[in-house]
Amino acid sequence: MKIDQKRIEKLIKKRGVAFISSIDENGFPNTKAMLPPRHSEGLKTFYFSTNTSSARVQQYRKNQKACIYFCRKGIIHYWGVMLKGKMEVLEDDESKKLLWRLGDRIYYPKGVTDPDYCVLKFTASEGRFYSDLQTESFFV
Amino acid sequence: MKIDQKRIEKLIKKRGVAFISSIDENGFPNTKAMLPPRHSEGLKTFYFSTNTSSARVQQYRKNQKACIYFCRKGIIHYWGVMLKGKMEVLEDDESKKLLWRLGDRIYYPKGVTDPDYCVLKFTASEGRFYSDLQTESFFV
Repeated sequence: MKIDQKRIEKLIKKRGVAFISSIDENGFPNTKAMLPPRHSEGLKTFYFSTNTSSARVQQYRKNQKACIYFCRKGIIHYWGVMLKGKMEVLEDDESKKLLWRLGDRIYYPKGVTDPDYCVLKFTASEGRFYSDLQTESFFV
Repeated sequence: MKIDQKRIEKLIKKRGVAFISSIDENGFPNTKAMLPPRHSEGLKTFYFSTNTSSARVQQYRKNQKACIYFCRKGIIHYWGVMLKGKMEVLEDDESKKLLWRLGDRIYYPKGVTDPDYCVLKFTASEGRFYSDLQTESFFV
Protein backbone atom coordinates (compact mmCIF):
# COMPACT_ATOMS: atom_id res chain seq x y z
CA MET A 1 0.00 0.00 0.00
CA LYS A 2 1.38 3.38 -0.98
CA ILE A 3 -0.07 6.29 0.96
CA ASP A 4 -1.79 8.86 -1.26
CA GLN A 5 -2.26 11.87 1.03
CA LYS A 6 -4.46 13.68 -1.51
CA ARG A 7 -6.82 10.70 -1.54
CA ILE A 8 -6.98 10.57 2.27
CA GLU A 9 -7.71 14.31 2.28
CA LYS A 10 -10.71 13.71 0.02
CA LEU A 11 -11.97 10.81 2.14
CA ILE A 12 -11.80 12.96 5.28
CA LYS A 13 -13.71 15.84 3.67
CA LYS A 14 -16.77 13.61 3.23
CA ARG A 15 -17.04 12.55 6.87
CA GLY A 16 -19.76 13.98 9.08
CA VAL A 17 -17.95 13.34 12.34
CA ALA A 18 -14.42 13.62 13.74
CA PHE A 19 -13.09 11.85 16.84
CA ILE A 20 -10.72 13.99 18.82
CA SER A 21 -8.58 12.79 21.72
CA SER A 22 -6.76 14.57 24.52
CA ILE A 23 -4.93 13.65 27.73
CA ASP A 24 -6.70 14.45 30.99
CA GLU A 25 -5.18 15.63 34.30
CA ASN A 26 -4.70 12.01 35.43
CA GLY A 27 -2.97 10.95 32.22
CA PHE A 28 -5.92 9.11 30.70
CA PRO A 29 -6.79 9.44 27.02
CA ASN A 30 -10.17 11.14 26.46
CA THR A 31 -12.07 10.71 23.21
CA LYS A 32 -15.08 12.58 21.91
CA ALA A 33 -17.01 12.82 18.67
CA MET A 34 -17.16 16.32 17.25
CA LEU A 35 -18.58 18.07 14.23
CA PRO A 36 -16.11 17.80 11.33
CA PRO A 37 -13.43 20.51 10.95
CA ARG A 38 -14.78 23.73 9.47
CA HIS A 39 -11.54 24.57 7.76
CA SER A 40 -8.46 22.52 6.87
CA GLU A 41 -5.23 22.76 4.90
CA GLY A 42 -4.21 19.44 3.37
CA LEU A 43 -3.60 16.79 6.02
CA LYS A 44 -1.58 19.30 8.05
CA THR A 45 -4.01 21.69 9.73
CA PHE A 46 -7.60 21.27 10.91
CA TYR A 47 -9.78 23.89 12.64
CA PHE A 48 -12.74 23.02 14.89
CA SER A 49 -15.13 25.34 16.70
CA THR A 50 -16.02 24.54 20.30
CA ASN A 51 -16.99 25.84 23.74
CA THR A 52 -14.22 27.58 25.70
CA SER A 53 -15.74 26.14 28.89
CA SER A 54 -15.52 22.52 27.69
CA ALA A 55 -13.42 19.92 29.49
CA ARG A 56 -11.50 19.33 26.26
CA VAL A 57 -10.33 22.94 26.02
CA GLN A 58 -9.06 22.86 29.62
CA GLN A 59 -7.13 19.67 28.83
CA TYR A 60 -5.51 21.05 25.68
CA ARG A 61 -4.43 24.20 27.52
CA LYS A 62 -2.41 21.95 29.86
CA ASN A 63 -1.27 19.36 27.32
CA GLN A 64 -1.33 19.96 23.56
CA LYS A 65 -0.74 16.31 22.63
CA ALA A 66 -3.68 15.19 20.55
CA CYS A 67 -4.94 12.89 17.86
CA ILE A 68 -7.85 13.17 15.48
CA TYR A 69 -9.47 10.19 13.80
CA PHE A 70 -11.82 9.73 10.85
CA CYS A 71 -13.25 6.51 9.51
CA ARG A 72 -15.89 4.93 7.37
CA LYS A 73 -17.31 1.45 7.60
CA GLY A 74 -19.09 0.49 4.41
CA ILE A 75 -20.80 -2.81 3.73
CA ILE A 76 -17.62 -4.40 2.42
CA HIS A 77 -14.79 -1.92 2.78
CA TYR A 78 -13.44 -0.08 5.77
CA TRP A 79 -10.92 2.71 6.16
CA GLY A 80 -9.68 4.79 9.08
CA VAL A 81 -7.03 7.46 9.48
CA MET A 82 -5.42 8.68 12.68
CA LEU A 83 -3.43 11.91 12.70
CA LYS A 84 -1.19 12.73 15.66
CA GLY A 85 -0.03 16.21 16.53
CA LYS A 86 -0.68 19.23 18.71
CA MET A 87 -3.94 21.03 19.47
CA GLU A 88 -3.91 24.77 20.16
CA VAL A 89 -6.75 26.78 21.70
CA LEU A 90 -7.21 30.02 19.72
CA GLU A 91 -9.28 32.93 21.00
CA ASP A 92 -8.16 35.74 18.69
CA ASP A 93 -10.79 37.53 16.59
CA GLU A 94 -9.29 36.50 13.25
CA SER A 95 -9.44 32.76 13.99
CA LYS A 96 -12.92 33.07 15.48
CA LYS A 97 -14.19 34.97 12.43
CA LEU A 98 -12.63 32.40 10.07
CA LEU A 99 -14.80 29.61 11.50
CA TRP A 100 -17.97 31.51 12.38
CA ARG A 101 -21.11 30.45 10.52
CA LEU A 102 -24.59 31.78 10.28
CA GLY A 103 -26.68 30.02 12.89
CA ASP A 104 -23.88 29.75 15.45
CA ARG A 105 -25.76 32.24 17.62
CA ILE A 106 -27.89 29.31 18.77
CA TYR A 107 -24.83 28.00 20.61
CA TYR A 108 -23.06 31.32 21.23
CA PRO A 109 -25.70 34.01 21.87
CA LYS A 110 -23.12 36.81 22.11
CA GLY A 111 -21.99 36.19 18.54
CA VAL A 112 -18.50 35.82 17.16
CA THR A 113 -16.96 37.59 20.17
CA ASP A 114 -18.77 35.33 22.68
CA PRO A 115 -16.09 34.36 25.25
CA ASP A 116 -17.50 30.82 25.36
CA TYR A 117 -16.74 30.39 21.64
CA CYS A 118 -13.21 29.42 20.66
CA VAL A 119 -11.25 27.61 17.96
CA LEU A 120 -9.22 24.42 18.21
CA LYS A 121 -6.34 24.30 15.73
CA PHE A 122 -4.82 20.89 15.15
CA THR A 123 -1.43 20.53 13.45
CA ALA A 124 -0.50 17.01 12.37
CA SER A 125 3.00 15.60 12.44
CA GLU A 126 2.34 11.99 11.53
CA GLY A 127 -0.47 9.66 10.62
CA ARG A 128 -1.56 6.08 10.28
CA PHE A 129 -3.92 4.84 7.60
CA TYR A 130 -5.98 1.65 7.97
CA SER A 131 -7.72 0.10 5.00
CA ASP A 132 -9.42 -3.25 5.39
CA LEU A 133 -6.70 -5.41 6.94
CA GLN A 134 -3.72 -3.30 5.87
CA THR A 135 -2.13 -0.46 7.77
CA GLU A 136 0.67 2.02 7.07
CA SER A 137 2.27 4.94 8.88
CA PHE A 138 3.25 8.19 7.19
CA PHE A 139 4.62 11.65 7.91
CA VAL A 140 2.47 14.67 7.12
CA MET B 1 -30.31 14.58 33.18
CA LYS B 2 -30.09 11.57 35.47
CA ILE B 3 -27.73 8.85 34.29
CA ASP B 4 -29.45 5.50 33.74
CA GLN B 5 -26.53 3.07 33.44
CA LYS B 6 -28.82 0.21 32.32
CA ARG B 7 -30.04 2.34 29.44
CA ILE B 8 -26.50 3.26 28.38
CA GLU B 9 -25.61 -0.44 28.50
CA LYS B 10 -28.41 -1.19 26.06
CA LEU B 11 -27.40 1.66 23.73
CA ILE B 12 -23.80 0.38 23.64
CA LYS B 13 -24.89 -3.19 22.83
CA LYS B 14 -26.41 -2.01 19.54
CA ARG B 15 -23.30 -0.29 18.22
CA GLY B 16 -21.27 -1.91 15.44
CA VAL B 17 -18.06 -0.10 16.28
CA ALA B 18 -16.06 0.89 19.36
CA PHE B 19 -13.37 3.58 19.52
CA ILE B 20 -10.50 2.65 21.79
CA SER B 21 -7.73 4.98 22.88
CA SER B 22 -4.29 4.40 24.37
CA ILE B 23 -1.18 6.46 25.15
CA ASP B 24 1.84 5.94 22.90
CA GLU B 25 5.55 5.98 23.83
CA ASN B 26 5.71 9.74 23.24
CA GLY B 27 2.69 10.51 25.40
CA PHE B 28 0.25 11.10 22.55
CA PRO B 29 -3.30 9.76 22.64
CA ASN B 30 -3.94 7.13 19.94
CA THR B 31 -7.47 6.31 18.79
CA LYS B 32 -8.69 3.47 16.64
CA ALA B 33 -12.02 2.01 15.61
CA MET B 34 -12.46 -1.63 16.55
CA LEU B 35 -15.10 -4.30 16.28
CA PRO B 36 -17.49 -4.01 19.23
CA PRO B 37 -16.69 -5.92 22.45
CA ARG B 38 -17.45 -9.62 22.20
CA HIS B 39 -18.30 -9.90 25.86
CA SER B 40 -19.19 -7.36 28.53
CA GLU B 41 -20.44 -7.12 32.11
CA GLY B 42 -22.61 -4.07 32.71
CA LEU B 43 -20.70 -0.84 32.10
CA LYS B 44 -17.77 -2.23 34.09
CA THR B 45 -15.94 -4.76 31.92
CA PHE B 46 -15.54 -5.07 28.16
CA TYR B 47 -13.56 -7.73 26.26
CA PHE B 48 -12.16 -7.22 22.77
CA SER B 49 -10.22 -9.64 20.57
CA THR B 50 -7.16 -8.36 18.73
CA ASN B 51 -3.72 -9.09 17.30
CA THR B 52 -0.94 -9.55 19.86
CA SER B 53 1.45 -7.92 17.36
CA SER B 54 -0.62 -4.72 17.05
CA ALA B 55 0.73 -1.32 18.07
CA ARG B 56 -2.17 -0.96 20.50
CA VAL B 57 -1.22 -4.08 22.46
CA GLN B 58 2.40 -2.89 22.82
CA GLN B 59 1.11 0.47 24.13
CA TYR B 60 -1.24 -1.09 26.70
CA ARG B 61 1.53 -3.34 28.00
CA LYS B 62 3.50 -0.18 28.87
CA ASN B 63 0.58 2.01 29.97
CA GLN B 64 -2.83 0.60 30.90
CA LYS B 65 -4.59 3.98 30.88
CA ALA B 66 -7.38 3.78 28.33
CA CYS B 67 -10.75 5.01 27.24
CA ILE B 68 -13.43 3.45 25.09
CA TYR B 69 -16.09 5.45 23.30
CA PHE B 70 -19.38 4.61 21.64
CA CYS B 71 -21.77 6.95 19.88
CA ARG B 72 -24.66 7.26 17.54
CA LYS B 73 -25.62 10.20 15.37
CA GLY B 74 -29.21 9.92 14.19
CA ILE B 75 -31.04 12.41 12.02
CA ILE B 76 -32.18 14.46 15.00
CA HIS B 77 -30.67 12.98 18.14
CA TYR B 78 -27.13 12.28 19.12
CA TRP B 79 -25.56 10.42 22.04
CA GLY B 80 -22.04 9.43 22.99
CA VAL B 81 -20.50 7.72 26.00
CA MET B 82 -16.87 7.70 27.05
CA LEU B 83 -15.65 5.21 29.65
CA LYS B 84 -12.25 5.71 31.27
CA GLY B 85 -10.29 2.94 32.95
CA LYS B 86 -7.52 0.41 32.47
CA MET B 87 -6.86 -2.01 29.60
CA GLU B 88 -5.20 -5.35 30.30
CA VAL B 89 -3.68 -7.66 27.69
CA LEU B 90 -4.78 -11.25 28.41
CA GLU B 91 -3.14 -14.24 26.79
CA ASP B 92 -4.38 -17.08 29.02
CA ASP B 93 -6.33 -19.93 27.39
CA GLU B 94 -9.52 -19.28 29.35
CA SER B 95 -9.84 -15.66 28.20
CA LYS B 96 -8.93 -16.55 24.63
CA LYS B 97 -11.53 -19.33 24.56
CA LEU B 98 -14.19 -17.01 26.01
CA LEU B 99 -13.95 -14.69 23.01
CA TRP B 100 -13.14 -17.14 20.23
CA ARG B 101 -15.70 -17.39 17.46
CA LEU B 102 -16.17 -19.63 14.49
CA GLY B 103 -14.52 -17.98 11.53
CA ASP B 104 -11.70 -16.41 13.53
CA ARG B 105 -9.28 -18.78 11.79
CA ILE B 106 -9.35 -16.36 8.86
CA TYR B 107 -7.45 -13.89 11.07
CA TYR B 108 -5.66 -16.40 13.33
CA PRO B 109 -4.77 -19.50 11.24
CA LYS B 110 -3.36 -21.38 14.26
CA GLY B 111 -6.73 -21.26 16.01
CA VAL B 112 -7.53 -20.28 19.58
CA THR B 113 -3.93 -20.87 20.74
CA ASP B 114 -2.48 -18.69 17.94
CA PRO B 115 0.16 -16.52 19.67
CA ASP B 116 -0.94 -13.54 17.54
CA TYR B 117 -4.46 -13.74 19.01
CA CYS B 118 -5.05 -12.10 22.39
CA VAL B 119 -7.76 -10.47 24.47
CA LEU B 120 -8.04 -6.86 25.62
CA LYS B 121 -9.92 -6.54 28.91
CA PHE B 122 -11.15 -3.04 29.72
CA THR B 123 -12.28 -2.16 33.25
CA ALA B 124 -14.12 1.15 33.62
CA SER B 125 -13.83 3.43 36.62
CA GLU B 126 -15.79 6.45 35.41
CA GLY B 127 -17.73 7.67 32.44
CA ARG B 128 -19.21 10.66 30.70
CA PHE B 129 -22.46 10.62 28.79
CA TYR B 130 -23.32 13.14 26.07
CA SER B 131 -26.81 13.48 24.76
CA ASP B 132 -27.65 16.26 22.32
CA LEU B 133 -26.32 19.34 24.08
CA GLN B 134 -26.27 17.94 27.61
CA THR B 135 -23.44 16.13 29.30
CA GLU B 136 -22.98 14.38 32.65
CA SER B 137 -20.20 12.46 34.38
CA PHE B 138 -20.75 9.32 36.43
CA PHE B 139 -18.92 6.59 38.34
CA VAL B 140 -19.22 3.01 37.14
